[in-house]
Amino acid sequence: MNIKALYKLGYGVYVVTSKKDDRINGQIANTVFQVTSEPPTVAVSINKNNLTHGVIKESRVFAASVLCQDTPLTFIGRFGFKSGRDSDKFKGVDYKTGETGAPIVLDNAVSYLEARVTKEMDVGTHTIFVGEVVNADVISDKICMTYDYYHQIKGGKTPKAAATYIEEKKIEKVPKEATS
Amino acid sequence: MNIKALYKLGYGVYVVTSKKDDRINGQIANTVFQVTSEPPTVAVSINKNNLTHGVIKESRVFAASVLCQDTPLTFIGRFGFKSGRDSDKFKGVDYKTGETGAPIVLDNAVSYLEARVTKEMDVGTHTIFVGEVVNADVISDKICMTYDYYHQIKGGKTPKAAATYIEEKKIEKVPKEATS
Repeated sequence: MNIKALYKLGYGVYVVTSKKDDRINGQIANTVFQVTSEPPTVAVSINKNNLTHGVIKESRVFAASVLCQDTPLTFIGRFGFKSGRDSDKFKGVDYKTGETGAPIVLDNAVSYLEARVTKEMDVGTHTIFVGEVVNADVISDKICMTYDYYHQIKGGKTPKAAATYIEEKKIEKVPKEATS
Repeated sequence: MNIKALYKLGYGVYVVTSKKDDRINGQIANTVFQVTSEPPTVAVSINKNNLTHGVIKESRVFAASVLCQDTPLTFIGRFGFKSGRDSDKFKGVDYKTGETGAPIVLDNAVSYLEARVTKEMDVGTHTIFVGEVVNADVISDKICMTYDYYHQIKGGKTPKAAATYIEEKKIEKVPKEATS
């Protein structure tokens, strides 16, 4: 099995946030996707070890901002490679409070959505939260960042907690006919 | 709510297939995504009205081929806008039988994976099937097609049964500040 085949799946890059009581938190995720159109419903896969996981699980709401292609790596690093336990990720970040109470990140955002969790599924290290979209808007016509662009052009890394993290030892060489 | 915000979510374009007894079927999907890395697990959201849905539900296996950017619209139309009830979608298509028995489409494919369903979640019009990856390979170094490229460059449409279908009447104009 060449696990690198999974690298070819396409994703965007998102800041997923939530709020419980006075606690707001957010993290980078690439697994935000629409699962039904009627009603508009989205899903997100979140690592159980992440602070955002506990906040969504309790509050039953989340927001997701779609990041633009020219989002600085430092911005992604702030939300993707640091824990809200150790730092205030939102310090100096432009955001507004959504209808659900979740903070909607506006910096580097092309569009955003807010959802109320209707279902969840335990998939081992992660939980897939499914939520009905209650608010959404487009705020920029900038090009969206793809996860492939983040890796190939920006030189971005994947943290260990990500759904798409693959240990180097598991990666086989691409077959010769595929690289020639 | 501007539902067009959901158009900004990033996806690839895939042929998802399955087999039950002598019946093979496949369809286009854009919602294939990795949900955990340990073990490698993927999910796919399939409309309950699609023939492929019933085949996966019974056989508990599916395969997904990642389509390349230059996949002809006629090829996507064959798997995406026709039903396996009315035509043999695989006629003239290069595919091989995978470890799970599911047909793995090789034409226009960059990589593929096969999975055995471990969980499923009813999300209304669709079912999210979650499966552990049992086989995967990279077969080309071509650029993958993004769902955005399919729409914007290829002029592709979204069928009504898709998770990401949005009726025209629901689409609000992009705010003026976003287009100026």
